[in-house]
Amino acid sequence: MSQTSNMTPALSFASDNVTGAATPILEALLACNAGQYHSYGDDDYSQRLEQTFRQLFEHDSLKVFLVATGTAANALGLSLLTPPWGHVFCHPESHINQDECNAPGFFSHGAKLVTVPGDNAKLDPAQLQAVLTTGQGDVHMTQPAAVSLTQATELGTLYQLEEIRAIGALCREAGLRLHMDGARFANALEALGCTPAQMTWQAGVEVLSFGATKNGALGVEAVVLFDPCLAEQFALRRKRGGHLFSKMRFLAAQMEAYLADDLWRSNARQANAMARRLADGLAQVPGLSLVAPVEANMLFCQLPLPLIKALLAEGFDFYHDRWAPGVVRLVTSFATQAQDVDHLLARVRALA
Amino acid sequence: MSQTSNMTPALSFASDNVTGAATPILEALLACNAGQYHSYGDDDYSQRLEQTFRQLFEHDSLKVFLVATGTAANALGLSLLTPPWGHVFCHPESHINQDECNAPGFFSHGAKLVTVPGDNAKLDPAQLQAVLTTGQGDVHMTQPAAVSLTQATELGTLYQLEEIRAIGALCREAGLRLHMDGARFANALEALGCTPAQMTWQAGVEVLSFGATKNGALGVEAVVLFDPCLAEQFALRRKRGGHLFSKMRFLAAQMEAYLADDLWRSNARQANAMARRLADGLAQVPGLSLVAPVEANMLFCQLPLPLIKALLAEGFDFYHDRWAPGVVRLVTSFATQAQDVDHLLARVRALA
Amino acid sequence: MSQTSNMTPALSFASDNVTGAATPILEALLACNAGQYHSYGDDDYSQRLEQTFRQLFEHDSLKVFLVATGTAANALGLSLLTPPWGHVFCHPESHINQDECNAPGFFSHGAKLVTVPGDNAKLDPAQLQAVLTTGQGDVHMTQPAAVSLTQATELGTLYQLEEIRAIGALCREAGLRLHMDGARFANALEALGCTPAQMTWQAGVEVLSFGATKNGALGVEAVVLFDPCLAEQFALRRKRGGHLFSKMRFLAAQMEAYLADDLWRSNARQANAMARRLADGLAQVPGLSLVAPVEANMLFCQLPLPLIKALLAEGFDFYHDRWAPGVVRLVTSFATQAQDVDHLLARVRALA
Amino acid sequence: MSQTSNMTPALSFASDNVTGAATPILEALLACNAGQYHSYGDDDYSQRLEQTFRQLFEHDSLKVFLVATGTAANALGLSLLTPPWGHVFCHPESHINQDECNAPGFFSHGAKLVTVPGDNAKLDPAQLQAVLTTGQGDVHMTQPAAVSLTQATELGTLYQLEEIRAIGALCREAGLRLHMDGARFANALEALGCTPAQMTWQAGVEVLSFGATKNGALGVEAVVLFDPCLAEQFALRRKRGGHLFSKMRFLAAQMEAYLADDLWRSNARQANAMARRLADGLAQVPGLSLVAPVEANMLFCQLPLPLIKALLAEGFDFYHDRWAPGVVRLVTSFATQAQDVDHLLARVRALA
Repeated sequence: MSQTSNMTPALSFASDNVTGAATPILEALLACNAGQYHSYGDDDYSQRLEQTFRQLFEHDSLKVFLVATGTAANALGLSLLTPPWGHVFCHPESHINQDECNAPGFFSHGAKLVTVPGDNAKLDPAQLQAVLTTGQGDVHMTQPAAVSLTQATELGTLYQLEEIRAIGALCREAGLRLHMDGARFANALEALGCTPAQMTWQAGVEVLSFGATKNGALGVEAVVLFDPCLAEQFALRRKRGGHLFSKMRFLAAQMEAYLADDLWRSNARQANAMARRLADGLAQVPGLSLVAPVEANMLFCQLPLPLIKALLAEGFDFYHDRWAPGVVRLVTSFATQAQDVDHLLARVRALA
Repeated sequence: MSQTSNMTPALSFASDNVTGAATPILEALLACNAGQYHSYGDDDYSQRLEQTFRQLFEHDSLKVFLVATGTAANALGLSLLTPPWGHVFCHPESHINQDECNAPGFFSHGAKLVTVPGDNAKLDPAQLQAVLTTGQGDVHMTQPAAVSLTQATELGTLYQLEEIRAIGALCREAGLRLHMDGARFANALEALGCTPAQMTWQAGVEVLSFGATKNGALGVEAVVLFDPCLAEQFALRRKRGGHLFSKMRFLAAQMEAYLADDLWRSNARQANAMARRLADGLAQVPGLSLVAPVEANMLFCQLPLPLIKALLAEGFDFYHDRWAPGVVRLVTSFATQAQDVDHLLARVRALA
Repeated sequence: MSQTSNMTPALSFASDNVTGAATPILEALLACNAGQYHSYGDDDYSQRLEQTFRQLFEHDSLKVFLVATGTAANALGLSLLTPPWGHVFCHPESHINQDECNAPGFFSHGAKLVTVPGDNAKLDPAQLQAVLTTGQGDVHMTQPAAVSLTQATELGTLYQLEEIRAIGALCREAGLRLHMDGARFANALEALGCTPAQMTWQAGVEVLSFGATKNGALGVEAVVLFDPCLAEQFALRRKRGGHLFSKMRFLAAQMEAYLADDLWRSNARQANAMARRLADGLAQVPGLSLVAPVEANMLFCQLPLPLIKALLAEGFDFYHDRWAPGVVRLVTSFATQAQDVDHLLARVRALA
Repeated sequence: MSQTSNMTPALSFASDNVTGAATPILEALLACNAGQYHSYGDDDYSQRLEQTFRQLFEHDSLKVFLVATGTAANALGLSLLTPPWGHVFCHPESHINQDECNAPGFFSHGAKLVTVPGDNAKLDPAQLQAVLTTGQGDVHMTQPAAVSLTQATELGTLYQLEEIRAIGALCREAGLRLHMDGARFANALEALGCTPAQMTWQAGVEVLSFGATKNGALGVEAVVLFDPCLAEQFALRRKRGGHLFSKMRFLAAQMEAYLADDLWRSNARQANAMARRLADGLAQVPGLSLVAPVEANMLFCQLPLPLIKALLAEGFDFYHDRWAPGVVRLVTSFATQAQDVDHLLARVRALA
């Protein structure tokens, strides 16, 4: 799979990480290359990032740490919230449960992930409540420690603010802590039209994985700690996990550019709009059906098997063999253009 | 601390990671940005890297994995060579023992580092041999599992080929495995004038951390496995440690450019030559003395305390408070220019 | 809670571990107390145990290790069968999943337990097969490593030999390994009327937790390794887990007495017979219903809530608040006498 | 090595764990065997133990937990005092460093043991102070977390009260916590003639491994927590480590009998007196020399190699090949009789 020119529609809808980085982020990398900087985060770029995040989240004591992968962000973040003998509630379809080779178990030294079902890849508050405190104080059982929710979810759906708040309230009441996997945080925020503060600490979130890689960076994620007491151990855990970069400015510069001039939000808007456009187009093709509401930059659709094969044969790329037969996942990104979507739709219509 | 003009000498000799990346590496990043690529290493850049390394090391079955930090490379590499109840011999001054917050203990699930002394930051083969098999087969003691040596060392010295071979032979005889921390592999190779194969697997090294970050990359290191049977678990350990990048091509492109056109070797030559120039200059200043032979791109020198203060006051930057009083460390890199060195020397002479 | 006279019926049916030890086992302890013995298992008692187990299991190369608790036996045994990035399939109601505070996750350094449902607390082979190899070779997912089954189950039910064999065959085909939690091994063996070999290695079991504590010992369990290659690491893991006793002879003497003169089998027969007697009696009381077949030394029964309260008020002891409302668990042991059962039945009939 | 009659002198001086248990402890086991008790420590024996320890240590909020081995006591205790990225200072000759297969690293999830030398197997306060805070706050280095001292030491020597207090003061000042490995606590206490409180919490000790096995029990050790806030996690760590016994009363009964009627103190007095007698006798033999002061129940002595061989040939048993050539260790216990010592001395004199 090689480079597409501007003239040729992009054929891969496999993931939002099949694209490169947004131009302003590359430019920022180049700009910070010249000169000498202290290493390991003791540079100007890294130092001023905390202030940027505090303004963004309207929170004057949060702490922020950069890592390069979403798995590192989630696993390090969760390791702050559970002892090794604890467990973390999550949805069966969550990334931490399905796609991280149990990195949370590694970084937490053995804590369990306990799944709680729910429609549309979202934790069902009632089902969560039913098990939330089971085993508390019983040495024979792992201790309930935290809840992790994914916003936007792995199914491309969203928690509404009141849903996050409801889970936040359950956690507070039961003495558990709340983590948000925001690998697609920007997509969710744009879709909900709320503030970062509303979607996180004001709703009860204490640790946030704030993704940038899928939405335009080369590789950088922020772990935002709304409880600054967690910062000291995070710094040590990050280093010990091999996730502290010597040339840390290259991570910080990416994140700075990502947040500058609302790049992160316009990128997310574009990705979301393209998913919308794709969903609308597919909805008009007889015989196709969407598996879940399309609320961010990803959709799941039921296609006839011959159509799937025909699309793949034409060079289109997407995941299709991980779910029920005929279910495909189509992901858009900041780089997806209307022509890419329209080209796919045209071929679907022609081949259907 | 920032400095951009070619006309102004660089003042920091704190580390080879205070500089940015070499131009060809940045260009490679830009070049691979366009187009869509499969993620997680299933891209062309990543795929062809193995062949490159096999040619470089004259070894037709090695496996190579990229990570972004030296600590990840070392800790993941060592985790292949010791069980949790094992121990790894290393020098007290080694990076794995001093500077990684016990990442080797984390990734190995509790294996011990056991230090063996030796002059010039090198393991003394006789002292190593004396303890090499202590405890073997005794359940009360951790089991000797591996030896790790650093080439070039943290003191800027080198193991000669016969020294590596001697340690390799000890390991083979005793059933231990041999790891090399090659964060400054290129500097060592240039200084010794040997082949990569001679300095590694032909001398008994089984797992190599092959550094690129200090010598011109933004952040990429290769773990080279001369025993391909270790590859399967490495892939899982890397993912589980959060060190598998979604946009893996950005790591692979850095490494490809690093190895192309002998960039890595010319970069190392420049760094070494600048250290040599600096050492020669300092040797002519009365009252200064080098602490160890200068064999790569780093030197340790005893300076009068007033001189240290005066240099710092002028904006020079280097570590000076980690060792015996008056000992400073000066590190050169691919980006160090003769004028930078000469400027420092001139100020030393003036202030001494 | 204490009760000593032969004349007074025992009131606790809470567990088979509310009783003390069988007399021959206490006598064995006393007998081995005099004299001096090498420590840490290098004593005559420990040394001759392997031969005893080899004869018992008709297996000439098995290795056997003693520990003092069932959780240690299970967790250490499983740690041999899964890497930290692996997962072990088990039933949701299994002891390792419910009652060991994730000791398997601790000893395996983070491996996951993945539950597979099935009736009567037994793994359903079809459901197991459906997920058995999911994720194999995919670095994003934990790797299927082992299956653990419990014989007799936590519900007092049994796997028939052909059921164990079927699961053993699935494991062999898929490259997974098979563990049996035999905390109530003797009860199962007596009920099935087969040989130890048939119920274990001949059916595919590779590591067995062979319980003695619940069936008459003070505290000793054997881990039986039918693959002797696992022995070396087991010995180190046991010591590192703090489970190697200095006065190991006291564990070995218990186990020796347990196996001598068929004590273990007669003890199990008594426990099973008492459960049978209890089940038969309860079946004749209108309004009561057994929740599962009674196949070993434990039964689950649905009782009216007022009856539960009345029995508790009379001093009877049993678990009643862990399952659906009204479900109680009644466990018999080698020490349970017919008069104990008959007394309970009489009171049930009177109070029902 | 078989039973010795009262008429035959005991020949093994290999360890204080080559003997069985003291009679009152066996009797206590028998006494608690009858009747039914709640399991997992919810029995009368276990419940009243806390009060006993509080009186003994003159401390009204301490918490106490029983385990069966000294390694479990030490490793679980230390795991309370250091995070996985911390380190614990100890003497190179300490049991935790030499004889526990790095169980402390296992239970602490990777914390390091850092050795500090000192004469007579005791931490040298000046050398400890010199490194006590190295790395504090530096993410590249493990964090100083705790100090562990052994009383009596593995060399049979003692910390005087003022020495413990001095180390306690260093810890308090630097924010580190203090652990005492008291596998031979009773021997030390008798030798010093002080109170348990003076030797522990009043001197700064926060977690104590209180041994009983070497001094008369079958297998039981108490972990005493002078900071009750540590109790909750200890209970979970103990269960997760497989160290919570179902028939916990058998551990509690041993400990109860151990502490009753000053058995523990009279046992220790006997062991100490026998070591004294042995030391005095050896001192009169020309050509022999004691390696260290004999302050508890163990001595190290330099013997001519032919004498060592001759004694072994006569059936005597002791360790002799772990230290410098000719150094032997001789350990006495509560069961050692004057005739045993005199017999050994007679043979030494005859063979010397």
